[in-house]
Amino acid sequence: MGNAPIITLTTDFGYKDPFVGIMKGVILGINPSINIVDITHDIAPGNIMQAAFAIETSFAYFPYKTIHLVVVDPGVGTMRRPIIVSTARHYLVGPDNGIFSRIYSIAESIDVFHVTAEHYFLSPSSKTFHGRDIFAPVAAWLSKGVDIMNFGEPISDYINLPIPLPSFPAKNIIEGEIIYIDRFGNLTTNIHSQKIEDLLENNKGKKMRVLVKGMEAPFRNFYADANDNGIYSLINSFNYIELFVKNGNASLEFGLKVGDKVGVIFN
Amino acid sequence: MGNAPIITLTTDFGYKDPFVGIMKGVILGINPSINIVDITHDIAPGNIMQAAFAIETSFAYFPYKTIHLVVVDPGVGTMRRPIIVSTARHYLVGPDNGIFSRIYSIAESIDVFHVTAEHYFLSPSSKTFHGRDIFAPVAAWLSKGVDIMNFGEPISDYINLPIPLPSFPAKNIIEGEIIYIDRFGNLTTNIHSQKIEDLLENNKGKKMRVLVKGMEAPFRNFYADANDNGIYSLINSFNYIELFVKNGNASLEFGLKVGDKVGVIFN
Amino acid sequence: MGNAPIITLTTDFGYKDPFVGIMKGVILGINPSINIVDITHDIAPGNIMQAAFAIETSFAYFPYKTIHLVVVDPGVGTMRRPIIVSTARHYLVGPDNGIFSRIYSIAESIDVFHVTAEHYFLSPSSKTFHGRDIFAPVAAWLSKGVDIMNFGEPISDYINLPIPLPSFPAKNIIEGEIIYIDRFGNLTTNIHSQKIEDLLENNKGKKMRVLVKGMEAPFRNFYADANDNGIYSLINSFNYIELFVKNGNASLEFGLKVGDKVGVIFN
Repeated sequence: MGNAPIITLTTDFGYKDPFVGIMKGVILGINPSINIVDITHDIAPGNIMQAAFAIETSFAYFPYKTIHLVVVDPGVGTMRRPIIVSTARHYLVGPDNGIFSRIYSIAESIDVFHVTAEHYFLSPSSKTFHGRDIFAPVAAWLSKGVDIMNFGEPISDYINLPIPLPSFPAKNIIEGEIIYIDRFGNLTTNIHSQKIEDLLENNKGKKMRVLVKGMEAPFRNFYADANDNGIYSLINSFNYIELFVKNGNASLEFGLKVGDKVGVIFN
Repeated sequence: MGNAPIITLTTDFGYKDPFVGIMKGVILGINPSINIVDITHDIAPGNIMQAAFAIETSFAYFPYKTIHLVVVDPGVGTMRRPIIVSTARHYLVGPDNGIFSRIYSIAESIDVFHVTAEHYFLSPSSKTFHGRDIFAPVAAWLSKGVDIMNFGEPISDYINLPIPLPSFPAKNIIEGEIIYIDRFGNLTTNIHSQKIEDLLENNKGKKMRVLVKGMEAPFRNFYADANDNGIYSLINSFNYIELFVKNGNASLEFGLKVGDKVGVIFN
Repeated sequence: MGNAPIITLTTDFGYKDPFVGIMKGVILGINPSINIVDITHDIAPGNIMQAAFAIETSFAYFPYKTIHLVVVDPGVGTMRRPIIVSTARHYLVGPDNGIFSRIYSIAESIDVFHVTAEHYFLSPSSKTFHGRDIFAPVAAWLSKGVDIMNFGEPISDYINLPIPLPSFPAKNIIEGEIIYIDRFGNLTTNIHSQKIEDLLENNKGKKMRVLVKGMEAPFRNFYADANDNGIYSLINSFNYIELFVKNGNASLEFGLKVGDKVGVIFN
């Protein structure tokens, strides 16, 4: 009571191996009434920033006090710290390797705790699968109502990785980049709709154009609003500018990848 | 009480992105006691008829009043209607794009409602992710016992796509086609066992032969009953004629694909 | 009450087809309060020993009286028997084709029952999908508290496939092989850490070297402890010697596969 009955899982463990099922077994052994929801387990191996984006776009759609367990952990076994992040509405559990950097950048209030209370870990603990031995049991005990202060001390020197942000080289230009490619080959950029609205103020009457690799990607309101060929843009459901091909794969058809530059210009 | 505690999910959202997890968060935020079951999220992007087959073969195995949420929705953002389909035993929720055509063809009684009650949607709603903003919350509110009449008006002009049916060019011949390829490379045809039994009546004493691309696929009762090489046929667990290679992949080994013709002849 | 509320699923049915969702529908129709957990559905088609390894490494992490349903069943439709295996702490349900051989080799006490009570099966039952028609309902009825004796007679002639074990050609040598490749390309061998400790007794002061295909794989405590290139070894989270490449894919980079020999030598 008081704590949410949901733990979400986001990992790079894939679907082929028993790793995720094992974590669920550990969690249910501690809290049999928990509801476990998979966000994704197909984060590219070791890709911390991809996991950071997945959890940023997901966490707020879950109920109050949901616990989000995120394990992309190439430094497993080193001194990197296990942490619990507490926001106004959610908990996040995972390694202190920057995986929550996007949460830090948007959450109103953040408290971060270094988990040191080893009696909450599986014993013995391995040096290579902390998802099973540390993170799963810590999330499960947290879901049972154990006070966050019991897991360890608050810290302020947690790892906060730089997030690629768009630049504004002129009053009518935003220069951003592709940060994520989804299964449809649609390309999410780091240009948030709020930035566009800010520029609209000073560029009334001008036309907005979205440019990538020398091509214009005409702006549409939704996918089916485009023609059958060519690259287009829209504001996606996470409020970022997205490039797409109607009924096609923009990434493959136009050879676009994470890090490629995308411009928005009003003229 | 009275309503089933299960919502199933069938989408083309894949397993790589957080889309499905987000839908589950929305559902659980509205109905924390719902049981969510994945049918599949690996429908080929935009393939409405593949989703129609997946839900046709699945829905009846779920308990009374299960709600089946099916989102393959290339027309998201257009005027295509969100609908709820009510059969004698189940509910189905999704876009009115023909995705339920196979249900329409087999269910005893069908009532279809155009969902217009926007206060059941997430607000604001995007134009590109109605799985999250419209279909998930509508299914969740339906699971809470909201009367179906509260979501919108009954309609009769819902989209009903033509289903490829076999033809009967002679009294001893059925001409069908491949409609689905599973992960094993087994090829489901649209020739239902009932059609074969109908022909058997008039072809007593004759031998049934299954033909594809000039090859005969000898009929067996189960997979292990075939020899190690060559293509064979059986009545599969959904009661359709299926082509297979024992311990092999019939689709890859014989270059067979959806739409290829398959014949059954008694002689 | 008394029985665990968890059924786990391990199959080769994949994620593309509705097979797994259908099994869950059948289970929930019989026991609506069961908690179903996926171990994996991406066992290579028909690979019995891969499934045997997946369930061996997973089952003990689940609570007392969890029911583990394992369906990799190339002999479906033949006379191969459906069985329930009862260990001191868990149940396992599946075909008698050797899939539980690794459980037999490690569990303290084993009772195996040939399931013959057809009134627990779906009716009619197909000859090609016993996961749906036999194994899912049997697991579900077992989870409801039906006594195991009611399903059929105990048997002792169940199929027990040989498990590849390491050999000890000299007092300072272990000769093993690769038995599993995970999604990261890490290669699990059949050399258990206990075997290494046994040899350590007689080889004090000597250095342990791990060899594969003429290469030495230096021993590390965890992944991040290795250099960026080259192949390394460690004791993995299941206590077997494992070969890996830091932030890389050892299987692809060094062309290593299941069955390749791995040596441990003290000198």
